[in-house]
Amino acid sequence: MSTVDADLARVAWNGDGLAPVVVQQFDTREVLMLAWMDAEALRRTLTGGRAVYWSRSRREYWRKGDTSGNTQEVRGVSVDCDGDTILLTVDQHGPACHTGTRTCFDGRGLRLGSDGGERG
Amino acid sequence: MSTVDADLARVAWNGDGLAPVVVQQFDTREVLMLAWMDAEALRRTLTGGRAVYWSRSRREYWRKGDTSGNTQEVRGVSVDCDGDTILLTVDQHGPACHTGTRTCFDGRGLRLGSDGGERG
Repeated sequence: MSTVDADLARVAWNGDGLAPVVVQQFDTREVLMLAWMDAEALRRTLTGGRAVYWSRSRREYWRKGDTSGNTQEVRGVSVDCDGDTILLTVDQHGPACHTGTRTCFDGRGLRLGSDGGERG
Repeated sequence: MSTVDADLARVAWNGDGLAPVVVQQFDTREVLMLAWMDAEALRRTLTGGRAVYWSRSRREYWRKGDTSGNTQEVRGVSVDCDGDTILLTVDQHGPACHTGTRTCFDGRGLRLGSDGGERG
């Protein structure tokens, strides 16, 4: 079995053949986004060095940055203890989010410790 | 609508009523684990201040640390640009992973830039 095939076999794909991918900036450790991969997307990522995802809405592969220019150079790939989640550390060029923010979570906080009262 | 209800309404739950939750240590920014929440788990998390998840395998709520003692005090909660992923920043006490490692991704790297050759 090739190295890539052995690595692909370590992932516990879900019923749709996918796994969620947490994408993290390698140096600042910001969580940039969450995306999805199937085995072929992971194969392309491992061999090509740029992040390739499976778009569940468009039902196609997308190599991050091919349209926007905001590429992700992969620095590391790990799977979690039960193999069903992938952690990708990348060097993100430009904003990660299609809305133009650095991460997909910027400025989107929920309120903690709420008393359940009316807003405003 | 209460503050909590308004926040719950910002999440785009999947077909099973769930959303993936990326869990990150608030100061070191390590990605600790990925878990799942439904609306009730998020409500308990927002109001109680400790991370509560939905276990897909056991089909029950679990407040992290109730069994292990390795609690997660929540410092922040965000949703992403399309609302279908939650980012939880926490203060993790003890190891996050049930295997005893700090994170669920420790020592579980895949090989990058492989040439597809045989292993070993």
